[in-house]
Amino acid sequence: MINFIVAQTDLKAFITIDFDGNLTPNDLKSVQPPDPIAGDFAKKLVILSGRAPIWLYAFLVHYYHPVKAVAVFDPRLDGGVVVQSHSNDYSVGDLVRFD
Amino acid sequence: MINFIVAQTDLKAFITIDFDGNLTPNDLKSVQPPDPIAGDFAKKLVILSGRAPIWLYAFLVHYYHPVKAVAVFDPRLDGGVVVQSHSNDYSVGDLVRFD
Repeated sequence: MINFIVAQTDLKAFITIDFDGNLTPNDLKSVQPPDPIAGDFAKKLVILSGRAPIWLYAFLVHYYHPVKAVAVFDPRLDGGVVVQSHSNDYSVGDLVRFD
Repeated sequence: MINFIVAQTDLKAFITIDFDGNLTPNDLKSVQPPDPIAGDFAKKLVILSGRAPIWLYAFLVHYYHPVKAVAVFDPRLDGGVVVQSHSNDYSVGDLVRFD
């Protein structure tokens, strides 16, 4: 089972992926991440984090398409890299902090 | 500079990411992957492959949104995991081969 731990500020949501054992592609058919439309997600930058297969991230990036912007946290850079944006507040390739 | 090596069949396009050195988030501002609208990409399953940061994959998954379906190749599974589909031919979580 894949869990998602959410921390939020007024402008950002930091979502950490957490799971036990190994994932299989089939897990994508039942995964239930926090709804991008519910709450205030749609108005925020969503930063995805956690150790997970690239295909889980790829699924989540598409899943969170409705939100203001999506970033992927890179521990080497100590920040999130914006990979899609529907707002003038963020541009693809920006490095953003969660604070 | 990021290069993309494309191999295609009638139904699938296998795109391998290739670059020298280390990438920075800023590289996303100038990267030019093969156009998802040009050629026959839009009618195909696009499988992304190669060693690259998760945020580059995340960018590409959004970039290739216009195509029939997108998969991420996982060498451990020896196949591509479908992460988004706009066709009844593929479902999210399917494991697909390139042949």
